[in-house]
Amino acid sequence: MSSTWGNHIKISIWGESHSESIGVVVDGLPSGEQIDWDELLFFMERRRSQGGALDTPRKESDLPQIQSGLLNHITCGTPICALIPNENTRSKDYSLFSQVARPSHADYTGALRYNGYNDIRGGGHFSGRLTAPLVFAGGLARQILHRRGISIAAHIAQIGTIWDDPFTAENLTPQQIDVLNHSFFPVLNAQAGEQMQARITQVRSQKDSIGGMIQCAVLGIPGGYGDPLFDSVESRLSSLLFSIPAVKGVSFGDGFALCSMVGSEANDPFSIRDGKVVTDTNRNGGILGGITTGMPVVFQCAFKPTASIAKEQKTVNFVTKEETTLAITGRHDPCIVRRAVPVVESAAALAVLDLLLSSDRGWNIR
Amino acid sequence: MSSTWGNHIKISIWGESHSESIGVVVDGLPSGEQIDWDELLFFMERRRSQGGALDTPRKESDLPQIQSGLLNHITCGTPICALIPNENTRSKDYSLFSQVARPSHADYTGALRYNGYNDIRGGGHFSGRLTAPLVFAGGLARQILHRRGISIAAHIAQIGTIWDDPFTAENLTPQQIDVLNHSFFPVLNAQAGEQMQARITQVRSQKDSIGGMIQCAVLGIPGGYGDPLFDSVESRLSSLLFSIPAVKGVSFGDGFALCSMVGSEANDPFSIRDGKVVTDTNRNGGILGGITTGMPVVFQCAFKPTASIAKEQKTVNFVTKEETTLAITGRHDPCIVRRAVPVVESAAALAVLDLLLSSDRGWNIR
Amino acid sequence: MSSTWGNHIKISIWGESHSESIGVVVDGLPSGEQIDWDELLFFMERRRSQGGALDTPRKESDLPQIQSGLLNHITCGTPICALIPNENTRSKDYSLFSQVARPSHADYTGALRYNGYNDIRGGGHFSGRLTAPLVFAGGLARQILHRRGISIAAHIAQIGTIWDDPFTAENLTPQQIDVLNHSFFPVLNAQAGEQMQARITQVRSQKDSIGGMIQCAVLGIPGGYGDPLFDSVESRLSSLLFSIPAVKGVSFGDGFALCSMVGSEANDPFSIRDGKVVTDTNRNGGILGGITTGMPVVFQCAFKPTASIAKEQKTVNFVTKEETTLAITGRHDPCIVRRAVPVVESAAALAVLDLLLSSDRGWNIR
Amino acid sequence: MSSTWGNHIKISIWGESHSESIGVVVDGLPSGEQIDWDELLFFMERRRSQGGALDTPRKESDLPQIQSGLLNHITCGTPICALIPNENTRSKDYSLFSQVARPSHADYTGALRYNGYNDIRGGGHFSGRLTAPLVFAGGLARQILHRRGISIAAHIAQIGTIWDDPFTAENLTPQQIDVLNHSFFPVLNAQAGEQMQARITQVRSQKDSIGGMIQCAVLGIPGGYGDPLFDSVESRLSSLLFSIPAVKGVSFGDGFALCSMVGSEANDPFSIRDGKVVTDTNRNGGILGGITTGMPVVFQCAFKPTASIAKEQKTVNFVTKEETTLAITGRHDPCIVRRAVPVVESAAALAVLDLLLSSDRGWNIR
Repeated sequence: MSSTWGNHIKISIWGESHSESIGVVVDGLPSGEQIDWDELLFFMERRRSQGGALDTPRKESDLPQIQSGLLNHITCGTPICALIPNENTRSKDYSLFSQVARPSHADYTGALRYNGYNDIRGGGHFSGRLTAPLVFAGGLARQILHRRGISIAAHIAQIGTIWDDPFTAENLTPQQIDVLNHSFFPVLNAQAGEQMQARITQVRSQKDSIGGMIQCAVLGIPGGYGDPLFDSVESRLSSLLFSIPAVKGVSFGDGFALCSMVGSEANDPFSIRDGKVVTDTNRNGGILGGITTGMPVVFQCAFKPTASIAKEQKTVNFVTKEETTLAITGRHDPCIVRRAVPVVESAAALAVLDLLLSSDRGWNIR
Repeated sequence: MSSTWGNHIKISIWGESHSESIGVVVDGLPSGEQIDWDELLFFMERRRSQGGALDTPRKESDLPQIQSGLLNHITCGTPICALIPNENTRSKDYSLFSQVARPSHADYTGALRYNGYNDIRGGGHFSGRLTAPLVFAGGLARQILHRRGISIAAHIAQIGTIWDDPFTAENLTPQQIDVLNHSFFPVLNAQAGEQMQARITQVRSQKDSIGGMIQCAVLGIPGGYGDPLFDSVESRLSSLLFSIPAVKGVSFGDGFALCSMVGSEANDPFSIRDGKVVTDTNRNGGILGGITTGMPVVFQCAFKPTASIAKEQKTVNFVTKEETTLAITGRHDPCIVRRAVPVVESAAALAVLDLLLSSDRGWNIR
Repeated sequence: MSSTWGNHIKISIWGESHSESIGVVVDGLPSGEQIDWDELLFFMERRRSQGGALDTPRKESDLPQIQSGLLNHITCGTPICALIPNENTRSKDYSLFSQVARPSHADYTGALRYNGYNDIRGGGHFSGRLTAPLVFAGGLARQILHRRGISIAAHIAQIGTIWDDPFTAENLTPQQIDVLNHSFFPVLNAQAGEQMQARITQVRSQKDSIGGMIQCAVLGIPGGYGDPLFDSVESRLSSLLFSIPAVKGVSFGDGFALCSMVGSEANDPFSIRDGKVVTDTNRNGGILGGITTGMPVVFQCAFKPTASIAKEQKTVNFVTKEETTLAITGRHDPCIVRRAVPVVESAAALAVLDLLLSSDRGWNIR
Repeated sequence: MSSTWGNHIKISIWGESHSESIGVVVDGLPSGEQIDWDELLFFMERRRSQGGALDTPRKESDLPQIQSGLLNHITCGTPICALIPNENTRSKDYSLFSQVARPSHADYTGALRYNGYNDIRGGGHFSGRLTAPLVFAGGLARQILHRRGISIAAHIAQIGTIWDDPFTAENLTPQQIDVLNHSFFPVLNAQAGEQMQARITQVRSQKDSIGGMIQCAVLGIPGGYGDPLFDSVESRLSSLLFSIPAVKGVSFGDGFALCSMVGSEANDPFSIRDGKVVTDTNRNGGILGGITTGMPVVFQCAFKPTASIAKEQKTVNFVTKEETTLAITGRHDPCIVRRAVPVVESAAALAVLDLLLSSDRGWNIR
């Protein structure tokens, strides 16, 4: 059904926004991997609401409590379970939504899917909070990959109509990756970043929200991993990326821009550099025929604006079948994109680690 | 690995471009479904090369030979196997590519992945020919869905910089669907279609190729199907769509355009129409929280230009590690988009039928 | 890997004997199912050590703490997570076993599998304690099935050389099922039960342990569920039954006794009773061609004796590669069979509910 | 559904007894593996009916026709498809069974499962013929394992009440394996073998059939492969073994005999031999905690007597719901056990290769 993913790694996520806890079971990780706990917590902290003008006022400590599978911060090889208590819950905010659907939210579809029995408090199982356990799992995968020379970086490529610089061969440097990995508003162009933040502050004051795009790169993954057809790298990654709430588009390399190109523009010419096969450009995002080329795997995710806005909207009471209006008063992010950066990186880390572990070519590329 | 897909339905595809045959095993289809054979063949014919200016000169009859699971054109409920012989093969064209990589093709990654043991003739397992069995499977699913009031239509939304009209509430009519379903170059705007065909003819004469976009709609699927997180309708569809060669982007509803919107623009207001809950707009593409709303499921696929072009290109011999150039002389489509329309529709049909069949809400919505 | 099971239902189990907690995520259960909490706890209590002469002195309260997916004891349809704290742990007992392997236990294979990084305290992830979350999940499935007229009963068919009466058409009555379902030492023949208990007490006093067999029946499951080949009812059930520690054999109907029969003895003649197709005998255990016949599904599980015994045994230090002897002093059950009865019933309940839910014939047979 | 199996390897089988062909798609095999074609055909020949007194008079050439994935008898790494035509079909024999159920056959359950739409000719998808493609797939796996020092041998351990010698440390020699692997009636005790054949000839003359048991051993598999809980070696093997028609029991090591032992008898003492950890006995069949010990993996399969017998039997017409009698006149094996030996070996080969390939410890133990 909804909560299990993976070929070799199996991730199982549970929880509702206001249930006792949310959490994750991660199975299939190799044994003997040392986890840097501070780094893991810092990675999770990047997803956590910082309050202020950009994020929801609901602040949770979001400290994962290890239940199993880690001993002295070293993986046992058995399932790792981490539990994150739900602390700061205000359930009274949500009683209305069992009948009146917030536009573009899952109130109505959830009621249909579960015949009205789902827990609607705080968005229930559809809440963005469910990405916290995914980031925990991704944080583990990320460190295991990093030890083998694979690093992952993402930046906020777009907020509304404001664009960051794209990844290029020049700016995909170890230094730049390090800066992005330690930034709470990761952009390549600092000025664009400031404009984006101003725009988010503005839409919040207008009782509105705004969408955006994240671009992510995986560096150091060797060529020859992946499969044609149903287990293409694109298929594996997209199935996980589209499980992130609010993602409505995924593209690889130059993505939709390839539709307007001719082949002689779009094709990536091969070269030999330092005795290795490389491509001069990377319009295919490091993937050909579903298989890695050895160039960085680059992809984009489109995020729609946060559905919950304070502005009055037209909607219906789907129980009484009457039209009505709604101004949402709960605590919400005016823009989810900043907090989604480590979520996208986590999906990438999990998909790439799973890709290596399920290969017969040997996963341990250290 | 690469050739099996599905939750309830299982599709297993085999074959190389120049192997004895290509084919598919489809398991999990319900028993007792009458298949209209002429309609199935017509659907497959839409994918077949028609030669001429738009398609590859390699013409195959592509008639599926049923091996099992169908008796008097009625599904037995057991696995259906269909075999498509490879007839028109010219293997001498390909011997070069075991060393010299066609840019943006899978020659190099295939050699890495399979340690040089893969069958490279005609692109081998990476050939676009492998979509023929997928269209056979999709043709079955499509008829089973259609009997239950679910229909699927796609059009060529973009070729290069020429755009067709998009789907709207107005043009998504039974008549329009029927026209698209019977067209060999399906567009909503006939004039755009003519310009597109002229552009394809032009790039061919320039020894080049061109990319494009397909937009697809699934009508009649009721609300409440799908799941949050890993089995979202988006995740299920995208994993199959990204297995189609040359697809580099997938988006739902307004897709990447949502990145530049504010919430009050992007949200779809709910209304009551004829006693039913509907949305006034459909920017979310009929999916909220990973679950169908009952509105049409609408999505887009970005296709890169055909990698094989006759123009000379810079590349490498990846065995000797030397740079070289290459002008490809095999038989190729200047634009794959036209023939990909039934492939995209097939992926949609299979994903939607699998979605229904794996639901505990009952699949048989007839 | 090791911790996820299911076609439609997904069960993910975590935990080690001495970790913070053990637990389970159960996904794919239908929404709106009322759970009788007292009945669930009573079912789990049947697995719990009662101390005394028959069970281990390690007593745990084993109360499941619901984390998600249940609201007012009604299933939400989303993943249900239950956590069971480990309370009564004595880790000092186990330090030896990282080098000296207990014969027939998983100390040695666990060290190989996980390169020595697994948590060995209390048997770690291999502990019989891990069946507690399985019984929680099975307890949910059991109630959902019972509401639809499907009931499950098991009895201790054999301890050492003492045999209980087998299930027959006569004793498979609602009354008898009810008695078995409420018994802490469930047998059909009370005298055999007393002899079994005396034998267990005796082997304990001899610092030894003893094996046994459980026979289980599923009543009320309609005909026509299951599949030929890889998803036969036997395949589905056995894959789950063989995940129970200490199970070394599984058989259906007359099982291994069928090897010595001729066809005219072994075949179950069909009859019409009350207008329904039945079989006069049930040597095939209610399954033909991998599919249910409508007769009770009957199967047996062989349990080896508890590996940990107080008697001195010959073994090795697998790190220093030296032979040595070992007398195990931890707390162990002299016979695991009594406590395994609800575990076997749980596996049956989960497999049968999964069978119904993954069928295209409709699962809701109420 | 029914026709796909595997974690890393994916096997998809199609076909009915009288359909155009039967066959298999095997995906996930490593590339570059040389297949000895004569050895493969000889292995398949051991499953084929030899006519005479012991086997069915229906003789098929059963020559696999490679469709894809093998080039010059070397695996490409892509899906291997093999097709076996159905040649010797006599469909008139079977028309009756759409209404009158052969006792202990799948006529009735198949009709329920597929609402009467399944192909009943020759037993359709339930026919023992479907094991031919499994043996093809197993024949590939077997050679890939053999190259890495893993060999598989099985013998007919029991026919009716006649028992062969069991496997022991003494008779599990390379010579003995070679003899068994080249025998059409593989037994360890030649005299028992002759008695078994006489017994089969006798039951045939009595218009009856007879059951039996196969014991199988996998040698050379290193310790540390497999998983606790749901992916135990026992779970993986049994799920495949129970997909073989007529198998009603599976046990490992001493199996059901362990039920009557005490721990001090049943436990396998560890020893050091040639610097390696071994066990003195192998009552656990080479598996502890679901993980291989490095000792031979030994298991047993119980086969019921062939359901189809010429003797008159009591049965029903399940359409008209009337009782009747039936004497089956088609062509059938009086005992399926001899021909099932390579089927059991194939299941073992596939499960063990899948076990290695899905391990993160490295599969390539050569």
